[in-house]
Amino acid sequence: MSNILTSRSQDYAQWYNDLVLKGGLADYSAVRGCMVIKPYGYRLWEHMRDVLDRMFRETGHENAYFPLFVPKSLFEAEEQNAEGFAKECAVVTHYRLKADPEHKGRLIVDPAAKLEEELVVRPTSEAIIWNTYKNWIQSYRDLPILVNQWANVVRWEMRTRLFLRTAEFLWQEGHTAHATKEEAIAETKQMLEVYAAFAEEYMALPVIRGVKTANERFAGAEDTYCIEALMQDGKALQAGTSHFLGQNFAKAFDVQFTDRDNKLDYVWATSWGVSTRLIGALVMAHSDDQGLVLPPRIAPLQVVIVPIYKGADSQPRIDEKAAEIMQALKALGISVKYDNDDSNRPGWKFAEYELRGVPVRIALGLRDIEQGQAEVARRDTKEKTAMPLEGIADRIQVLLREIQDNMYLRAKAFRDSHITKADSWEEFRQLLDEKGGFIAAHWDGSPETEEKIKEMTKATIRCIPLDNEQEAGTCILTGKPSGQRVLFAKAY
Amino acid sequence: MSNILTSRSQDYAQWYNDLVLKGGLADYSAVRGCMVIKPYGYRLWEHMRDVLDRMFRETGHENAYFPLFVPKSLFEAEEQNAEGFAKECAVVTHYRLKADPEHKGRLIVDPAAKLEEELVVRPTSEAIIWNTYKNWIQSYRDLPILVNQWANVVRWEMRTRLFLRTAEFLWQEGHTAHATKEEAIAETKQMLEVYAAFAEEYMALPVIRGVKTANERFAGAEDTYCIEALMQDGKALQAGTSHFLGQNFAKAFDVQFTDRDNKLDYVWATSWGVSTRLIGALVMAHSDDQGLVLPPRIAPLQVVIVPIYKGADSQPRIDEKAAEIMQALKALGISVKYDNDDSNRPGWKFAEYELRGVPVRIALGLRDIEQGQAEVARRDTKEKTAMPLEGIADRIQVLLREIQDNMYLRAKAFRDSHITKADSWEEFRQLLDEKGGFIAAHWDGSPETEEKIKEMTKATIRCIPLDNEQEAGTCILTGKPSGQRVLFAKAY
Repeated sequence: MSNILTSRSQDYAQWYNDLVLKGGLADYSAVRGCMVIKPYGYRLWEHMRDVLDRMFRETGHENAYFPLFVPKSLFEAEEQNAEGFAKECAVVTHYRLKADPEHKGRLIVDPAAKLEEELVVRPTSEAIIWNTYKNWIQSYRDLPILVNQWANVVRWEMRTRLFLRTAEFLWQEGHTAHATKEEAIAETKQMLEVYAAFAEEYMALPVIRGVKTANERFAGAEDTYCIEALMQDGKALQAGTSHFLGQNFAKAFDVQFTDRDNKLDYVWATSWGVSTRLIGALVMAHSDDQGLVLPPRIAPLQVVIVPIYKGADSQPRIDEKAAEIMQALKALGISVKYDNDDSNRPGWKFAEYELRGVPVRIALGLRDIEQGQAEVARRDTKEKTAMPLEGIADRIQVLLREIQDNMYLRAKAFRDSHITKADSWEEFRQLLDEKGGFIAAHWDGSPETEEKIKEMTKATIRCIPLDNEQEAGTCILTGKPSGQRVLFAKAY
Repeated sequence: MSNILTSRSQDYAQWYNDLVLKGGLADYSAVRGCMVIKPYGYRLWEHMRDVLDRMFRETGHENAYFPLFVPKSLFEAEEQNAEGFAKECAVVTHYRLKADPEHKGRLIVDPAAKLEEELVVRPTSEAIIWNTYKNWIQSYRDLPILVNQWANVVRWEMRTRLFLRTAEFLWQEGHTAHATKEEAIAETKQMLEVYAAFAEEYMALPVIRGVKTANERFAGAEDTYCIEALMQDGKALQAGTSHFLGQNFAKAFDVQFTDRDNKLDYVWATSWGVSTRLIGALVMAHSDDQGLVLPPRIAPLQVVIVPIYKGADSQPRIDEKAAEIMQALKALGISVKYDNDDSNRPGWKFAEYELRGVPVRIALGLRDIEQGQAEVARRDTKEKTAMPLEGIADRIQVLLREIQDNMYLRAKAFRDSHITKADSWEEFRQLLDEKGGFIAAHWDGSPETEEKIKEMTKATIRCIPLDNEQEAGTCILTGKPSGQRVLFAKAY
């Protein structure tokens, strides 16, 4: 029963796939590279979305919705951006199918319904949004615009993996417009901090706040800030990005405004986003060989109660006590399910809820009730304790907080023990091969060296941490002088 | 100032467009037939979505997410459905653009990146979802599946109108699977009732619950239930549909299950949806020549407070009193904004919030405060009263309920006075031309007659009301016998 998943040590990638599928998060679909997000996985996404949405509102943002399609010419207007995305995207060329005259029951594209201009399914919305902002902005009084969009986007990835890299995915994209450079940079940094707080406080996922090198930067950005997390296999994962776009998009779409001194200037921009990829990060950072381990603050279900019936007369008393506990938990805002489906045995249920990562399981038998206690199992450590029924809801509330904290501290200890300094090329290679994680090493600052290291080792510079120590040293590859270490890692 | 909108009597269609644009609900976009939903309009949609989502959960449904794309072959599998939608849809044929070798800075579709099988951007998701359910359903234990999806869909409409008919729109689509016909029919009716309750209790929009004739039915359905509303210009609008799909999709996608007696049978299905079209209905049912009139229960903003400053020293006392009122309103869960932006005059603000349909406006001057009252204007009737400041929050709460009720009753009185019986063809034509609204008339039950009436008058059978009186009569067009009246109208 405990081996329905491939183990992590046996095959980490297979373990991940098994878990996403069997844990009820997602499923493959009939469309290459596109997944179905199943109810349990979607609920998890809704919880993440709701928290982020509240944080966006609290920082003054509003939601809006822009078209799914981007006319090809708008892509061309923002050349740098287009260069990055246009290569792999879904292109709509026709607006009609018709019956195939040669094969009954078949459909073919109607050649008479060719679009004058092709439409790209949005891989990101800067182009269509800045083309719209052009009509919304005349004066400094129209600024700032602080808009966010929850939407689906499509990037034609060749190698896809559930949640981590799919052709279609769900995300939010913030697109803001400002009168000054300083204000735009402050916005960029503020949103990075929102993402970091969300990852750490809700996902129990410690992240490094940093800035990307020119090579790894979003094509249309002046600066790309990011949060980087570490997975259990020692690979890094970019969990969110916040871009300072300078005046690039304003210039591409000719968005000018009259400032307070009545002078015309181009508008300053930011964009920032996180996606369903976060679900992949969540799974890979915390889960184990028995299944998902979900942080209480965003888990779709926080507590499950499993009755242990012995004989028919035990049932009413257990059901009654369970109802009492449920009510007390719900009064505290804790989500709880009573699984009294008698077509499954308790052992099967235990394994099932472990697989689904429910943070707390309460097993309730007649003898427990008589002794004034219940067996409570926490998912993160798998510890079981006999918990007094007296005040059990309050105790569970404390336990849920403890689990949340423990998951964060455990992930942080792992992450911190996997940031290692390397001072030579040999050390660097050895660390990459044997230990993994982030490697703090000196780099000469040139894109060429960065590229060469990537080719030789598959490791990329994940970021230059925001709070980076300044320290003289020499580049691990070229021996040229360097003023600070940067963080390398293999990444998802 | 009051004439920023075309009046309804002058040009109803133009009034609607002006209102949607100037009321801040939506904007045109660079993509033919696609709109931008602006923050104020999107907030309205979010409020509607949140209420519906809660109602769906309370009736046992969960959300999930299925791919945006439907492979052409899945469309072919469901022939009847495809026939309806395949004609006008966005077709993805390629997955890459490349630099145009002949025009620097231009992009062209890369002919080498042609898809083996074309993908249709979903116009609705029955095909992709039933193709997935095939893998989820083996036994009666897997049933029912009660899933809803919030998503964007695309139908290549030739004539589009903001919210009412756009190429891309947002909606929810419920897709349920059941073991028995009875259960599926009960689900179909239950969801119609959910829609009707939402329209009446939240949108203040009275609706007629009915069933469509075969002509007007969803192509893949055995029965289409609908709610029909009446707009101020006398045209009907279909506000929601709930389809009993029989075993049609299960047969098309070969979805069988083993029942309790271990026999194989096809699964029974329903689907049901409402869309951003509801926003169009809301605008057209309630608004007036000064702007939007929004029902308090879903209005993005329920109360606005406008200070009437007279001299600098009046400001602190007004601000202080306003803060007090705000706090009291918020404590009751009422959304409120204090507009003390001194770059706009009170008169301008009054017009602006009337345009935006904010249900209650409080004007607050120094003399008001000294007299222990405030001037309160309700948007629905434009009445102004001096309201005591003592207990003002409670009074406003009562007033909001009154506005909600009044809007419903007013719309219902209008609707009820526009359901007229016609007993001859002349009477029918005259009513259509001169009065509009629903016309209750006898019809011989044949699709041919229905089609002929549509061709001659543009009126369609909106529905056969669920609580329809049985009454012998003769068809207004053919004179053949009929057992009941049906509701005709011109419709959006």
